[in-house]
Amino acid sequence: MSFTAPVRDLLFNIEHLSGWPGISSLPQHDGLDLSDISAVLEEFGRFCAEEIAPLNAPGDHAASRIENGKVILPEGFAEAYAQFVEMGWQGLQHPEAHGGQGLPRVVGAAATEILNAANMSFALCPLLTDGAIEALLTAGSEAQKSIYLAPLVSGRWTGTMNLTEPQAGSDLALVRSRAEPADDGSYRITGTKIFITYGEHDMAENTVHLVLARTPDALEGVKGISLFVVPKYMVQADGTLGPRNAVRCVSVEHKLGVKASPTAVLEYEGATGFLIGDENRGLDYMFVMMNAARFAVGLQGIAIAERAYQQALAYARDRVQSRPVDGSSRGAVTIINHPDVRRLLLRMRALTEAGRAMAAATAGWQELAHQGDAPEAAALAEFMVPLVKGFCTEMGVEVASMGVQVHGGMGFIEETGAAQHYRDARILPIYEGTTAIQANDLLGRKTLRDGGATARRLAAMIAETEAELAKASPFAQAVGTRLAAARGAFEATVDHLCSIGRSDPNAAFGGSVPYLMLAGNLIAGWQLARSLLVAEAALDRGEDTAFMAAKIATARFYADHILPETETQRLRITEGAESLLAGVL
Amino acid sequence: MSFTAPVRDLLFNIEHLSGWPGISSLPQHDGLDLSDISAVLEEFGRFCAEEIAPLNAPGDHAASRIENGKVILPEGFAEAYAQFVEMGWQGLQHPEAHGGQGLPRVVGAAATEILNAANMSFALCPLLTDGAIEALLTAGSEAQKSIYLAPLVSGRWTGTMNLTEPQAGSDLALVRSRAEPADDGSYRITGTKIFITYGEHDMAENTVHLVLARTPDALEGVKGISLFVVPKYMVQADGTLGPRNAVRCVSVEHKLGVKASPTAVLEYEGATGFLIGDENRGLDYMFVMMNAARFAVGLQGIAIAERAYQQALAYARDRVQSRPVDGSSRGAVTIINHPDVRRLLLRMRALTEAGRAMAAATAGWQELAHQGDAPEAAALAEFMVPLVKGFCTEMGVEVASMGVQVHGGMGFIEETGAAQHYRDARILPIYEGTTAIQANDLLGRKTLRDGGATARRLAAMIAETEAELAKASPFAQAVGTRLAAARGAFEATVDHLCSIGRSDPNAAFGGSVPYLMLAGNLIAGWQLARSLLVAEAALDRGEDTAFMAAKIATARFYADHILPETETQRLRITEGAESLLAGVL
Repeated sequence: MSFTAPVRDLLFNIEHLSGWPGISSLPQHDGLDLSDISAVLEEFGRFCAEEIAPLNAPGDHAASRIENGKVILPEGFAEAYAQFVEMGWQGLQHPEAHGGQGLPRVVGAAATEILNAANMSFALCPLLTDGAIEALLTAGSEAQKSIYLAPLVSGRWTGTMNLTEPQAGSDLALVRSRAEPADDGSYRITGTKIFITYGEHDMAENTVHLVLARTPDALEGVKGISLFVVPKYMVQADGTLGPRNAVRCVSVEHKLGVKASPTAVLEYEGATGFLIGDENRGLDYMFVMMNAARFAVGLQGIAIAERAYQQALAYARDRVQSRPVDGSSRGAVTIINHPDVRRLLLRMRALTEAGRAMAAATAGWQELAHQGDAPEAAALAEFMVPLVKGFCTEMGVEVASMGVQVHGGMGFIEETGAAQHYRDARILPIYEGTTAIQANDLLGRKTLRDGGATARRLAAMIAETEAELAKASPFAQAVGTRLAAARGAFEATVDHLCSIGRSDPNAAFGGSVPYLMLAGNLIAGWQLARSLLVAEAALDRGEDTAFMAAKIATARFYADHILPETETQRLRITEGAESLLAGVL
Repeated sequence: MSFTAPVRDLLFNIEHLSGWPGISSLPQHDGLDLSDISAVLEEFGRFCAEEIAPLNAPGDHAASRIENGKVILPEGFAEAYAQFVEMGWQGLQHPEAHGGQGLPRVVGAAATEILNAANMSFALCPLLTDGAIEALLTAGSEAQKSIYLAPLVSGRWTGTMNLTEPQAGSDLALVRSRAEPADDGSYRITGTKIFITYGEHDMAENTVHLVLARTPDALEGVKGISLFVVPKYMVQADGTLGPRNAVRCVSVEHKLGVKASPTAVLEYEGATGFLIGDENRGLDYMFVMMNAARFAVGLQGIAIAERAYQQALAYARDRVQSRPVDGSSRGAVTIINHPDVRRLLLRMRALTEAGRAMAAATAGWQELAHQGDAPEAAALAEFMVPLVKGFCTEMGVEVASMGVQVHGGMGFIEETGAAQHYRDARILPIYEGTTAIQANDLLGRKTLRDGGATARRLAAMIAETEAELAKASPFAQAVGTRLAAARGAFEATVDHLCSIGRSDPNAAFGGSVPYLMLAGNLIAGWQLARSLLVAEAALDRGEDTAFMAAKIATARFYADHILPETETQRLRITEGAESLLAGVL
């Protein structure tokens, strides 16, 4: 199944939704213009379509496996990764000081989506490396940065996140791995880490494990966890690689999806590690990495949705079956002419584009927050991470499932490829924090902690868009009406949750996932409504008319068919807690 | 993962929701009482839990495969099937005249759910045999009945349905298989049939293929299709088996789920077949079989939901992770104490019990329609088939997905078993007619054709329940309020669809699946509301208090959290057609 990177839509979002004028006027991005970005994304899209996407189905079929402690990746992965490194793609959004291209996060996010749509199993390796780079940039010493960053940014070395242990999944307070100080200032790390993505492989010269562990006498719970860097091969003073460290892969998991990506159980047996930052602050640093990874996993949700949509659309345009219900043909027609196939495909498309639009806006806030002095953007960016992660991954599962449905019986046959997306997508609402973990973060840290201020700030911004819609076309006005209703549901929910958050936490947190889905739906729909305004203006000017007309149609469909779900979510939250807490299991 | 048949709930539904007094007073069931049924279901539940359920995960792992034209089933399947036959379970609901037990369909439906929850791949074989029996009972000649029915009812022979061809899936008008009359009154059948469940296997002595094909000079389209019985081994005059017929299995599919069930491509090469009923009426007869199979597939949706729920509940009671949000414990607690895990499990349970309740009511109407002179029950039963099939299978996919989510990362590891349910469930909204096909049947044949009369009859029956709820407890009154709102959404939808059905079929059928989901949600919720009334009365009498209290809690949860989805569906139908039809793909 061929894949085409959705570069046109990604560029539209960067230009119109991400706050591009503010980003391009940052001193770091001086002189960068959209045509440069277009050229980068077009080239990357071509590379991914030609070199990475064709490995997706064979990689799923072959799967990664372990033989005598050595992890064997599917055929072609190592060669493709070598090309990826050679072309410098790992460094796209990383600092020029460490060999990167220093492009804004809005571009990095677009590239991450493209790579994941081409091949999610492949893309997981660079995704984890991105996270390791972020953590080292934030908390690494100058010496650590100079040792690890350049090889990571180049992609010659890859990174991993080692949090989970058999008894410690969502609950990192239960981490037991130990770090004993050695005389030379390093530590001896001992423990078992599970679910380590690309924890062992031979595509890169070295692997940089970032590992949570406890020093002796550390406090119990999350306040006694420190972060260590543990290279697979020791790095010598001159930067060359020395002996292998005492960490080994004891098995790789047999998984539902992303089968080409090796998920390792790693045994640390007194491995040499180096403390990152201060002792006992490991979780703070890991959160930097996790935030980057959570946002990236949200992008994976959009990516798998895009891939599933492209495949289903192609099938629906090709498969001939049954006469149309309106009698417009006496013979069977392609199934795209059947109203329910249209409905499925339009829902897939609308959810995908809305998620992408929301991610672009978020990446814009992240860029401003990261590069500039922009406290409001920082608060918005933090609010959005659990939303992009939670909403776009739940959406990815739904869209992949609809993709199977469009294929009918062929969708259930593995050779067709639609089933792989359904299997691959299912990890997304789980890893890097389940949807419930995202929702607790959204409700607890991002909403209750500031008394709902950021949430209400977003509602006010949405109301501004409504005012613009009210002055535009009848279609825009209709979208504005739906948007206002959804915003009203959101505000009522925020008020309710803020009023009971402290007094009745079980009731409040019983509504946390509905709140996340409501907010995600609203904000994604808001971005499509903004897109509609841009598209109507462009259409008036005669620019790119087919694209703009489609964008308007998609925004309208979203407003009529998806935004109204917010009201049901509100009811669950504001009126459903009693029956939730009274439920018998 | 162990499995316990939900016999208590199934019996409650038979006693209180299926119209039991009317069924037990039918002459055919004279003297049958609930204690007999309880004994049968308890024994069957034990058999399924002990002998069939343990084969589910190993069967998935091994999968059926083909070697030199011979299909190899997973280890243990043939032995378990032999026991199933030995104990006479295939004949449970089939006529005593053909060796069955002649129990009512409400009991057959309960048993079908149990068997499918134990092992859906295994259960598919008896499910297809049931369909073949129904078709032969309806349209077979006396000679055909005497040859085929006794061995099928005993389970010594199994049945298959041969509809699909590569170019003819949902669209049977495109069937090309040919049937040439021979001098002896038989036919020579030639063609390729795909997706034939248990199309080839050695568990039974013989396989009875029911095959759609065209006689020479038959009309094009569905009016030129005839139905044939094609035995795998020819049956001789004395009932013994003769030579093998000219039908062979050329491959079995590599599928996403139900891997133990062989899905065959069958090549008919001048195979000897016998016409069933009249020429060119094949589709009518096949609809008998399909209706039985569609209802049974709806039961599979409930079954997979039950299995997924039991597994997730056990995990949530065992897995310790994180402190509770209400601070009631200083240490980590089992995850069932976390509000969102409760929400997931309660939704799984409520959807499962509601689907089961709806199926029980439907089976009751089917029994009255089939055995008695009950035109109203017949209309209701026909209305319900696409609803049970469509709603309960979509629900099964959702519940299985939530089951994975409850397990967190472990859910993605195949050894855990939750992923199998997610994979297995995915076929259910597809085979025996996709959800869209069910929805077109519901809207076209079951709603528009009688001008909405049956739909409105159901609404009136629901209003009667609302009146009873209004006179009961405050909880009942609250459920009644939600039920009334959902009924209002249903009535508005029916009125709207009836008004545009002929004039704007694209708009109407673009709302067909939302209409199906709305109606399914409402009617399932109605049955839970009826259950609540029964349970409150039983609780007042002190009967089975834990079960009754749980039933009330589940009905309340359903009313608050699931019934309100009907309003969003109504909006999509009554206000969403324009943006659906204007959508750009």
